[in-house]
This record gives sequence, structure tokens and C-alpha cells, in this order.
Amino acid sequence: MTPAAEIPLATGAEMHRWIAELYPICRSITGNGIRQTLGRLQEQIPLKVHEVPSGTPVFDWTVPLEWNIRDAYIKDSSGRRVVDFHVSNLHVVNYSVPVRRRMALAELKTHLHTLPDRPDWIPYRTSYYSQTWGFCLAHRDLLAMREEEYEVCIDSTLESGNLTYGELVLPGASTEQIVISCHICHPSLANDNLSGIAVAVALARHLQSRPRRHTFRFLFIPGTIGAITWLARNEESAFLIRHGLILAGVGDSLPLNYKRSRRGNAEIDRAAAHVLRHADPSSGITDFSPYGYDERQFCSPGFDLAVGRLSRAPHGQFPEYHTSADNLEFVRPHSLEACLRACLDILFVLENNGCYQNQNPKCEPQLGKRGLYRSIGGTADSGQREMAMLWTLNLSDGHHSLLDIAERSQLPFAQIFEATCSLAEHGLLRKVDHLQFSAPAGMNRKEPTL
Amino acid sequence: MTPAAEIPLATGAEMHRWIAELYPICRSITGNGIRQTLGRLQEQIPLKVHEVPSGTPVFDWTVPLEWNIRDAYIKDSSGRRVVDFHVSNLHVVNYSVPVRRRMALAELKTHLHTLPDRPDWIPYRTSYYSQTWGFCLAHRDLLAMREEEYEVCIDSTLESGNLTYGELVLPGASTEQIVISCHICHPSLANDNLSGIAVAVALARHLQSRPRRHTFRFLFIPGTIGAITWLARNEESAFLIRHGLILAGVGDSLPLNYKRSRRGNAEIDRAAAHVLRHADPSSGITDFSPYGYDERQFCSPGFDLAVGRLSRAPHGQFPEYHTSADNLEFVRPHSLEACLRACLDILFVLENNGCYQNQNPKCEPQLGKRGLYRSIGGTADSGQREMAMLWTLNLSDGHHSLLDIAERSQLPFAQIFEATCSLAEHGLLRKVDHLQFSAPAGMNRKEPTL
Amino acid sequence: MTPAAEIPLATGAEMHRWIAELYPICRSITGNGIRQTLGRLQEQIPLKVHEVPSGTPVFDWTVPLEWNIRDAYIKDSSGRRVVDFHVSNLHVVNYSVPVRRRMALAELKTHLHTLPDRPDWIPYRTSYYSQTWGFCLAHRDLLAMREEEYEVCIDSTLESGNLTYGELVLPGASTEQIVISCHICHPSLANDNLSGIAVAVALARHLQSRPRRHTFRFLFIPGTIGAITWLARNEESAFLIRHGLILAGVGDSLPLNYKRSRRGNAEIDRAAAHVLRHADPSSGITDFSPYGYDERQFCSPGFDLAVGRLSRAPHGQFPEYHTSADNLEFVRPHSLEACLRACLDILFVLENNGCYQNQNPKCEPQLGKRGLYRSIGGTADSGQREMAMLWTLNLSDGHHSLLDIAERSQLPFAQIFEATCSLAEHGLLRKVDHLQFSAPAGMNRKEPTL
Repeated sequence: MTPAAEIPLATGAEMHRWIAELYPICRSITGNGIRQTLGRLQEQIPLKVHEVPSGTPVFDWTVPLEWNIRDAYIKDSSGRRVVDFHVSNLHVVNYSVPVRRRMALAELKTHLHTLPDRPDWIPYRTSYYSQTWGFCLAHRDLLAMREEEYEVCIDSTLESGNLTYGELVLPGASTEQIVISCHICHPSLANDNLSGIAVAVALARHLQSRPRRHTFRFLFIPGTIGAITWLARNEESAFLIRHGLILAGVGDSLPLNYKRSRRGNAEIDRAAAHVLRHADPSSGITDFSPYGYDERQFCSPGFDLAVGRLSRAPHGQFPEYHTSADNLEFVRPHSLEACLRACLDILFVLENNGCYQNQNPKCEPQLGKRGLYRSIGGTADSGQREMAMLWTLNLSDGHHSLLDIAERSQLPFAQIFEATCSLAEHGLLRKVDHLQFSAPAGMNRKEPTL
Repeated sequence: MTPAAEIPLATGAEMHRWIAELYPICRSITGNGIRQTLGRLQEQIPLKVHEVPSGTPVFDWTVPLEWNIRDAYIKDSSGRRVVDFHVSNLHVVNYSVPVRRRMALAELKTHLHTLPDRPDWIPYRTSYYSQTWGFCLAHRDLLAMREEEYEVCIDSTLESGNLTYGELVLPGASTEQIVISCHICHPSLANDNLSGIAVAVALARHLQSRPRRHTFRFLFIPGTIGAITWLARNEESAFLIRHGLILAGVGDSLPLNYKRSRRGNAEIDRAAAHVLRHADPSSGITDFSPYGYDERQFCSPGFDLAVGRLSRAPHGQFPEYHTSADNLEFVRPHSLEACLRACLDILFVLENNGCYQNQNPKCEPQLGKRGLYRSIGGTADSGQREMAMLWTLNLSDGHHSLLDIAERSQLPFAQIFEATCSLAEHGLLRKVDHLQFSAPAGMNRKEPTL
Repeated sequence: MTPAAEIPLATGAEMHRWIAELYPICRSITGNGIRQTLGRLQEQIPLKVHEVPSGTPVFDWTVPLEWNIRDAYIKDSSGRRVVDFHVSNLHVVNYSVPVRRRMALAELKTHLHTLPDRPDWIPYRTSYYSQTWGFCLAHRDLLAMREEEYEVCIDSTLESGNLTYGELVLPGASTEQIVISCHICHPSLANDNLSGIAVAVALARHLQSRPRRHTFRFLFIPGTIGAITWLARNEESAFLIRHGLILAGVGDSLPLNYKRSRRGNAEIDRAAAHVLRHADPSSGITDFSPYGYDERQFCSPGFDLAVGRLSRAPHGQFPEYHTSADNLEFVRPHSLEACLRACLDILFVLENNGCYQNQNPKCEPQLGKRGLYRSIGGTADSGQREMAMLWTLNLSDGHHSLLDIAERSQLPFAQIFEATCSLAEHGLLRKVDHLQFSAPAGMNRKEPTL
């Protein structure tokens, strides 16, 4: 079952390079920015790109018009571009209707957005669902604008077209799914959307060459409307999702933080908490709230899927959030790599968790005669390896999963799993299947995946 | 449904005036002191006064004799009243049998009660269930008494008569009841009994002119034997009590404290904890114990009603407890008013709590197109109003009550309820009744009460 | 039912004397050391001694050969005994095969065990399940050994024989059992095995002359293989064990520590936690783990018995553990006595716990008319005796056990039980049996045992 050509795990530096390539593209919830982005990702993974026509009803919403933009500026009376879309695509309120007019500063100001307490940063603003236009600029630049007439141009189109998203399905032994989803609708913001995209691509690249129990589904979708569109078009297969992870804002320098699913104690919630606790004591857990990224949709009460979110700096609560300071320096290669490792560890738990039955449940089996136990007794400590075997034997009554055992013993899941494999090899444990696998011929279920 | 003449909410100063009027009356568990007190309350609310004859069996108890007192004193050999009932009715052990004798100090001392460590305060003592007599006085005054013969007089009667209590029922849309109860059996003690009476009267005055879901029952009863008498005479209707609140000692300057019902997690327990947490972070919650006020009876195992208690200083654990220092200065207008507000907030939760069903449960509904959401996106914070809507939509799966949602979101119940009304108006929520209302014709259930 | 001749409770000094007598014997998991030890115990309690032949299969194990030893030494070239079994039986790796050879220091060293960081202490080592031999000695003595030829002798035999253990059954009113077990397989280690033996003997001596609800079973068994052997030979009666306590390491000067059973919240777990909390606030509770003493076998998943362990210093985590420093000075008479008291208190809870039904459940009964309540009211505090009655009445709804009531009221079990007896005498409580007693004729069930 070893894949012909296994792709090595991406490094943090590699993922950072991918982000740098995607950074200049002006993305929005629809339009060519997304198409261009997905095109680049297809160079790495065999993404399928879907187009959903404007006007398509998706639950309570409607797929909006497609927005495209070529240029935008504010020129002063001397003809100098005071604000220029080609310098930063954040300068235009995303989804602005076209405009081409001359106006005095006073009128223009009602369309200008700045951050007075961060005078050098450009804010990121959107206006998806009310037809208006605007510019975002550094507050320092606004203060420098004199009372004169300005020429204002947004060369955008807002027309019937499509909403675009990317999807990659990696079939597993079971039809039960793990979904990994990230948003792809933000323009030049590095942590907010590009960091999640980079880690998702790295994960997909790695998983496609590995044996898999679950079917993995990767979604690269516009935030909110993209998730709603996908769920509306895939209602039935949504209910095959057993576990899900939203990746958003995973590149900054703060510790990893997992936001629980609405269920709060789903297997993904416990797996993520377990992995983060062992990986980095400074990492955090946040309770579900119905605000944030696309967990809002996956965890709406009509779906209530076991989908949590991996992030770093708390959503919306750091100064760089939705500003030009969320740039390539804000994202650290090391952070991307640690997030990728944490994702793999979480997926390892989800793939290999299960319940086992101790085949010698009355008293301990004699591990020594099987070469599983040290021969000289009396020393104070049993090693972690032996403790992992004793815990696994003691709790493998068919009701405790390996994750339960890892939690109760405070040992890492990987160690419990290793002990399990070793005990199962000696016939001391037998798996009690809890996933409804229809394993393909030739797949050895005892072999760990990932 | 707006009442013809709505009575404005009583102020702390008003309630304090009521207490001052009732303060001089010598109340006991039976007798004219209670009748006089209830008579005064009838000037404010249409109380019904009940009389239960002495000797009536009430569960394991018997309604005792009626006690009345006209005068009591200790005169020294010069004829001076050393202790005088007309100076303070605390001077007589409450329920003392009549006595008229001369005796030496040594013998008299066996009938005297003082507080050596609070030498200026008169203790309050009772002897309901053993036929004896006694006087209470300041320890300083005891020390000044010389060895001489004293004339002792308690001009009381202990005769067959009645136990008296007051009751006010305010019918609501449902026969399910909320009971508000306070004790009325203490003589000149301001916090211990009068503060609870004042807040209960203010609540009743306010509620009688408002639409009501529940039927409200107000009890003004002698402690212990009064509660036992009421429960024995109203056993069936006691089981219509869904929630109850004992008001006792709510006027001092310490923070509010809610004592849980025996059940510990009844709706009243959760509502009170929620309201106190939001009203004042220094307020406290105390677990049930079978000692204190009439929660002892309502929470006896044969009833086990969801009745908690609102107080301030912990029962019996402050120096002024059951002494002459529990006087008009000990009770603060502001404390009475804050307690009244807390009661109204708790009742608001009980009246308006319920489960709703999100009518658009798959993904979020588009609040923007209904004018319920801001139009410019990208800012870091969603306002509390929007958060209240998102939480209510997310958890309204028919199983979470609005109080559940308020607790999980850490938002005040009133804000969740406001969001609920607004979403229900737009057809996004529908109520799943959990109270068995038989709503009267014309009553709009969506309208909040209180 | 008062026993003819009640044996007084052993003092700490007495138990320490018993330990001193047993200390010199060279015990192992089989052999004459155990027989000699059990013989001494038979002078105190009517132990039955069982012999199980070598080779008997016991679950996954086999009863091993019997080990006996007469002498062992290392002599230097001058013929001086550098290491001498008769000085300390810890000098020989327990269960060593016989050896009689001359060898250079370099070869000898591969058979020597020392503690470099405790250079004066002799370690205790065993080699039960791999045929080898070795010596243990003070590191300081090892350093003094010169490069020369040594004469090595272990005059031991390892032959087919028996595994020996002791058992004492004290029948009670019910066939349901409480098991008290201790290990008896350690040579000259005072805290590790002798302290538990001494307390178990003292308990058995006391219990044999008292009325008993449960049947008590005392086990004096070799660690691990002894427990496995007993469980294999008594599989059916093992399932009559309702509660169990392993006694191990209860004589040192650290506070008592109770290790929970695998179930974690069994009655024994709650009883022990309750007793320790009231006996000594510095005492501790440890969660179950599948390492330690014979709780490993009783709590294996095929048995999962409610067996916890009482110890002091945490297993394996104190420097004296399994060294010559675990000697007679390490064990304190006071610690033994406090442990014995704690055991009796725990057994008192298990024997007398039960559910009662308040016979006057509606409102409080009038305790005063039964002489159960003080007559002058108004004082701030109800005494503990009255609180115990109020709590017991309030929670005796047939569902709360006396232990539940003790825990919720934070009063000691003995006080709740005393209140229960007093209320039951007055007909206010009636027992709802939860143990399936078949009480012998003439046994008054209301009378407390122990």
C-alpha cells in the first residue's frame, strides 16, 4: 500500500513562498481573482473548480453577481494618483460598484475609510450586499489631502456570472468524511485566508499519497456565501461529514488555538484539544460561538456538524486584523509548519482512533513472557512504553476508545496507538470496529494511516 | 393589554417609609400584631386575610394558641421601669406566658437574655413551643442592676384564637404559579422580615397592573408554622407552584445573595444566578441547606418545590441578626430598590423564557436583506445586538431555552429576548411552547410580560 | 450480640512490634519465608494457609517454582565476606538461581546492583521471571572492592513446590463481601508489605469479635502472582466482592493517600474520600492508574471490582522505596494507628450506609415535641446535631444514601448516622434496604456495626 511516489511534507518556507505568490491577487467572493488563485493551486493538487451561476438560490441566499475590477484611483487636481488600486488592492472597498466622477473632498470623504489610531495602515472593507462604493487609505494620507476637486474612478463590473470554488476529494476506505475547509475571498491579506490555503494545500498534497480510512474533502471557498453555496448543493453528502476543520489565520506568531464545534465535545474537539495540549502547553481552546469563519455555516442548527476551527490570534481581536499590516511579514514559516504538524496529528487521531477489546481481561496478561516487559523488577518507575501498554490493556473493555485512554492516562495518543499495535500483534487486543468501514480488498486495517 | 392605570414602581425611599410604619408593631407567630400589619398592607394591595383556629392539625404540627401582649416591665425597688416593653418590644421573650411576681435578682437572672459581647444591643428571643417567659436586655443594663427585689410583669395572654396570614393571588394566562413568600412574625426587626415584606408589596403592586403568563401568589405568613399551615391547607395548589422565591433580609448593605432550591438547578435557580451575575458581580449564590427561612418547608422532600431565597447578609451570620441593631438604619433604601429590580428581572426571565425553533436552520439566514445587519463588512466586531441574533438563531433548535442561550452566550437574557422578538417578527423563529398555557382570548403570546 | 470477649484495638506501638518480629524474615513470592510469616500471623488471627502447586495455570500465568535460600555471599581473596546475606537479605537479588563460582570483579559487576546517588543504601531487586542471579549492595561498598578474584555463592533452590497465601473469612449477615488485601512477598522492607500486614491483622482481630453486615475476607498474598492465583481460584466468589481495600505502605510519616478504584466513583471511593477529608485535611486522593499494587489485578477489566488502595508516600516516588532505608525507623507507630482508625471509619461507612425514607416528608416534623430540638429560639446557630437531623430528614427521600447526605451537608458520616438512629427511633425515618441482606435471626438491623 506504499504510494508509488510519496510527496515529502511541505516546509514552512515552501508554504510561505506559496503565500507570497498568491498575495498580490485581488480576490473577492466572486470573480477572476478566485479563478486565478484556484488555477495556481491546481499546479499543486488536482482541484476541481466549480462555477455556480449568479442568481442561483442557496437556502435563504442568492448567488450574487460576479465582481471584477481592472483599475481604481483618486486623482488630485494635478492628475497625481493619491490613491491607486495598483499599489494595494485593499484601497478599493471590495465589491464596489463602478464609479467615474469628479467631486469635492467633502463629498468624497463620505466614501473614504481609514484607521485614525493606526495612521499608516490601510483598512480592508467590503460591501457585498449593499450597492455602494468606497476607498480605503492610510489615515496619514487622508490628512494630507487638500480641499480641491478630485477625479474618482473605479473601473469595476458587477454582472451576472458565477461564484467559483475549488474542491478536492481523496477517497478513503470508508465513505465517512473529514472535511478541511478554508476561505479564499480576501485580497492582499496574508494571514487571513492565504495561511489557511497554504496549510490546506500542504495537507492535501501529503494525504493524496497515503492510505486513508476516511474520505477527505478539501474545500477552497469564498467565506459565508461560498460555504452556504457548497452546503446547499451538497446537502446529502454534508451528512457524511464526521469531522471537519476550518483553517483560518494560522500563520501569525501567537500559539495555536482550537475553536470547538457547536457540539463542544465531538471527537474532533477532543482530538484537537489532546494534540494541542501535548504539542504546546501555551496553545488554547475556545468555546464555540456563532461568529468567525465558516464554522458558522457548518455548525448552523440544521447541520450541526462536528466542525471546529484552527487559528492562532483570536478572530478580529488583533490590531493587524483586516488591515494592510496583515502582510507577508506577519506570517511566519515556523507557524505554518507547526500548524501543518498539528493538523496531521489531529488527523492521525481521527484516522486511528477506535475501541479495542482486551483478549485476556481477567488480571494482567504476563507481558514478560512475550518480551514486552523488562526482566529485572523492583525499580521505582515503569517506563512510558510499559505504562502505555498497561493503560491500554486496563481500559480496553470495548467501551473506551484509544483517545479516551490517551486522555485518562495523560499519555500522547501516538504512544497509546503504538502500544495498541504491539499488543494486537501479540493477540492481546482485538479491534471493535466503530467506524462503518467497507475496507477495500487488500487493505490491512491494523496498519496505521497517515 | 396595557393596564388602565399602571402603578409606578416603588422607590427605595418609599419602601423604607413602609418599613418605618410597620417597625413599632409587636408581631409574633399569632396575634394582633400580625393582623395590624396585614391591615396596613391592605392599604396597598388587595390582600386576603386568613384566620386558622388554634388547635387545627397541620401535618405534624398543631396551630398554636394566639398570643397577645399589652405591657411588660421589670421595676426596681424604687418603682422605676428598668426594662420596659413600651421602649422596645424586643425586651420580652416573644410568646412569653403571663407573669406577675416579685423576685430577687438571682432568680430573675435565670429569665434574662443578654449579649455580653454586644453590651448595648437587646437580643431577640422566642419561646414558641415551651411555656416559659423571659426578658431580653442590653448587657450594660444587666450589669447596672443591683441585688434587690424586682417587680416583674408580663401582661400577655396565650389563648385559643387564630393563626393569621395574608395572601394575594394575581391570576395569569396559565394556572402554573410563581409564589413570592415572606415571613411576618418578627417584632421590631427591620431587615429580618420588614425588608422582605416591603419588596413583596412593591412587586405585587407592580404586577397587578401588568399582563401575566403565570399566576402569581404572594404569601405574608408567620415563619415555619405559617408556611406549614399554608402548605397543609393548600396541598393541591402547592403542586401548581413552578417557581418560588422567599424574600428575607434584603435590605442591608451587603450584596444580594441567592440561596438555591433543594433541586439546585431548577429554572428559578438558573434565572436568579443569571440575573445576579449580570446585575452585580459581587452578588453571591449559596447552596441549599435545610436551615434558614421558609424554603425549609417548601423544599421538604414531600414537596421539593423549586423555591429559592433572595437575601443579602448570610442568615444568622452577621452581628445585627436577631438584635435591636437590626433597626431602620440597618436597612438601606438603595438596597431595597436593587432587590426589587433583581426580582423583576428574575420574574422577567421566568415569564418570558421558552424554546424557539429556527425556521431557517440550514446555514445562517441573510439578516442583511431584512435590515437586521450592518451593510459595511470587514470591521472587527459584530455588535452585541447582532451577536444576540446569531446566538439565538444558532441555538434555537427547539431544545435550548432562551435562558440556555443567554447562559451559553454570556449575554443578558433581556438582550436575547429582544433578539428573539425581532427574529420572530421576521418569521425566522417560532415558539415551541413548553409552558402549558391556556392563553385567554386576545392575549398575544409574543408580547413580553412584566 | 455483644461478643463474649472483645479484643481491644491494637495500638501503634503493638503493630510496630509485630513488624519488628517479621522484619528479619526473607520473604519472596514463594517459599518458606512466606510460610514462616503466615505462621506468626496465625498466633493472632485464625488464618487459613493455602498451598498452590508450582505449574498450576492461573489465567495467563503459571504458578512458579518455589524459591528457598539458606546463604549467599561474596568473599574476597582473603576469604572475608564482602557481601553477606545474613547481614541483610536484600543483598541477594530476590529469586536468584543458585550459583557457586569464582570470578574477576569485571564479570561480577554485571551481577551487582547499587544506588550511586544513595551510596549507603542497599537496593531491593527481583528477578522472578528470568533465570538469573545477582547481588545488591551499598554503592560505597562497591567502590571499595578491589580488582581481584571473588568467590560468589548463592545457596538457593528453585524447585517445584508451592505458592503459599493466607486467607481469613469473617462471615457477616450478608454474603456480600468486603476484601482487605495486602502483599507479603517482600523481604526486609518494613513499610512496603509489613505495615499493610500489621494493619490488616489489627483490623481482622478487631472485626472478628464484632457484629458484621458484610462478610469480610482478609488476604495475605504474594504481590501480582498471588492476587492472580487467588482470583483464578476464586473467580465466582470474587463477584461477591462489593468493596475492597489494598493496604500497602501505610506506615511512613506522610499523610494518608487513597487511590481510587478503576470505577472512580464506587462507594468505597466515596467513603474513603469522605473519611480522609474529615480525618486529616492534608490527606490526599489519587486517581486510579494500572500500576502499583494488587489493585492492578482486582481492577483489571474482566473483574473491575470496587477495590481501592490506602497508602501514604506515593508508590515508587520516595527515595526509601525498595531500599534498605525502608526499615523499622521509617515506619511510625502513630502512622499505623491513624491508618487503622481510618480503615475502621471507612468500614463503618460501608457497613452502615443505606437509604432511608422520611416518614413525615411534607414540611419538617416538629422535633421540639419529641425533645429533639432546643426550646429557646432566635439564636443564630443551629447546633451540628440539629443540622445533622435537618439534613437527614430533608434528603431522606429514599434516593439519597447517608453517605450522599454526609457529603452534601459536609458533616461527618458518623454524625449523620447518629442523627439517623435517633430519628428512626422516633419513627421519623424508615430504612429502604439497598444491600440484599439475609439477616440472621436475632440480628437487629438498626444497631450499628463495627
